[in-house]
Amino acid sequence: MGLSGVRIGYFSRSWRLQLYFFTANFSLRPSTMVSASSLIGVDSRSLKKGDPAPDDLRPGQFRIYSMRFCPFAERALIYLAKKGIKAEVVNINLSEKPDWYFKKHPEGKVPALEYNGNIVVESAIIPQYLDDLLPETSVLPKDPYERAKQRILLEQLSSFIGAVYGVFRATPEDRQAKEERLHTELAKAESLLEKEYFGGDHAGFADYMIYPFYERLALFAGQSGDHAGFADYMIYPFYERLALFAGQSGAQSLHKEDFPGRQQYHRLTKWFRNMQSLPEITAAQQPPEMLTQYLHGYIKGIADYDLGL
Amino acid sequence: MGLSGVRIGYFSRSWRLQLYFFTANFSLRPSTMVSASSLIGVDSRSLKKGDPAPDDLRPGQFRIYSMRFCPFAERALIYLAKKGIKAEVVNINLSEKPDWYFKKHPEGKVPALEYNGNIVVESAIIPQYLDDLLPETSVLPKDPYERAKQRILLEQLSSFIGAVYGVFRATPEDRQAKEERLHTELAKAESLLEKEYFGGDHAGFADYMIYPFYERLALFAGQSGDHAGFADYMIYPFYERLALFAGQSGAQSLHKEDFPGRQQYHRLTKWFRNMQSLPEITAAQQPPEMLTQYLHGYIKGIADYDLGL
Repeated sequence: MGLSGVRIGYFSRSWRLQLYFFTANFSLRPSTMVSASSLIGVDSRSLKKGDPAPDDLRPGQFRIYSMRFCPFAERALIYLAKKGIKAEVVNINLSEKPDWYFKKHPEGKVPALEYNGNIVVESAIIPQYLDDLLPETSVLPKDPYERAKQRILLEQLSSFIGAVYGVFRATPEDRQAKEERLHTELAKAESLLEKEYFGGDHAGFADYMIYPFYERLALFAGQSGDHAGFADYMIYPFYERLALFAGQSGAQSLHKEDFPGRQQYHRLTKWFRNMQSLPEITAAQQPPEMLTQYLHGYIKGIADYDLGL
Repeated sequence: MGLSGVRIGYFSRSWRLQLYFFTANFSLRPSTMVSASSLIGVDSRSLKKGDPAPDDLRPGQFRIYSMRFCPFAERALIYLAKKGIKAEVVNINLSEKPDWYFKKHPEGKVPALEYNGNIVVESAIIPQYLDDLLPETSVLPKDPYERAKQRILLEQLSSFIGAVYGVFRATPEDRQAKEERLHTELAKAESLLEKEYFGGDHAGFADYMIYPFYERLALFAGQSGDHAGFADYMIYPFYERLALFAGQSGAQSLHKEDFPGRQQYHRLTKWFRNMQSLPEITAAQQPPEMLTQYLHGYIKGIADYDLGL
């Protein structure tokens, strides 16, 4: 999971954290209201080499070291938003990491969660930590088998991540193979989606963990490296800039307006639409046109962490 | 994580399960005594295509679908032994899987845990499920941060697994690079080992999850593809058969008698010796000479799941 500017896949893991409501006796009282404002500093400029470290946290405060466009970060942000945890977001410039950051995370990766002098890392572990810490807002179910099912689903759905970035990085020669692999993964996900959500009737752990990757794939849907189609120009103003990206491949066989495509992936298409409208998702995500622009830059080796700020 | 006979790495995930003590009102009462006999049928012949399915389980009974030499299986067996859970072990022939097994695990992999009509899969998820199910014998700590630390450690230690199998599969050309990568991983593990165990003063989740891979590496320590050294012949009678494996590489730069080597890896060497003597380890493991023989066969594409039976 390198953080260099060469790969678009697995490039980083980050989050936006949230300050915590405190009661007089230091017990935690999380809000159950999802609110974007609970992620304080989501769009702060990323700190880079030479920038001073942020102030020490007070007991009970949460801080997340993040990067605005990182899907692993987004996993945690969604979860924090869902649980109504207030947290300070500190964005890290992953190309020029501040020296002090290696004291927070020995490998300098994001996301990392700081709380009461402890650091928790890894985008799928931070959510489980938050659920253990605040069981009253646990997203993971209480029932042991249902908990296990959510973890198994995440494991089963995770091969999709590699397939998404395979398509992002596809060359004209291997695009067909990469798209075929992607469709194998989509078909698997479709078959695993027994109810409205992977979590059942509500969005759950597995939904939140995998959504950021669907979100990124959706931005590439219908797009070809050779030409921009009708949908490309219609959906996001950003696509007016598509000419810049000639020679790159996209997920041509997916539908942008109807992602990933109701006919072939009826349940997944409905799932994606449902997920998009959840307040914990909108609280955590960057505007699609911004994310698209970032991703196209990243593919070209120019990762602008402060894009649009 | 394919199960074909071609790769030695990640080849399967299995377990040995255990029957459960039942009280009159169906509450679970696990024994806290580690006992090899709680793993019923550990050394049963593997079931293959054409063999009938085992009988349906009664409520409250545990069954683990396993393979005797699989390190992922061993993770679960160790955990079951540690928690004193009685379980029936059903070994699966991974080259010729019985048709009925695909109803238990859609991909036909091991381990899979069956209990009260539910199936739980994945070698790191089954232990967490068992801890959730039987919190009174939880190996994962109660404290949320300590729990997270165990999960993070497992994540950090897991790159070691690929390095081990890299060494097993090394060719004369890339052996040096593969051994260097292995030593990088060993040095990382050494630095992460702050106390006697990765779990602190006691063996914990991360210890149990990673131990099976050290165990397998230890069997190759000091061994060279070009010649068998003093240690090779001394430690295991099996090594008298080493001539068979000429051309294969081993982890020449590690010490067999003092694995992985007290001078370079003081803490890890002590850790390995401590782990070896734990009753939950001895309950779960195959005799070293048997495992070595299996591994050498596996490398050559001949996986004998029923070796020695």
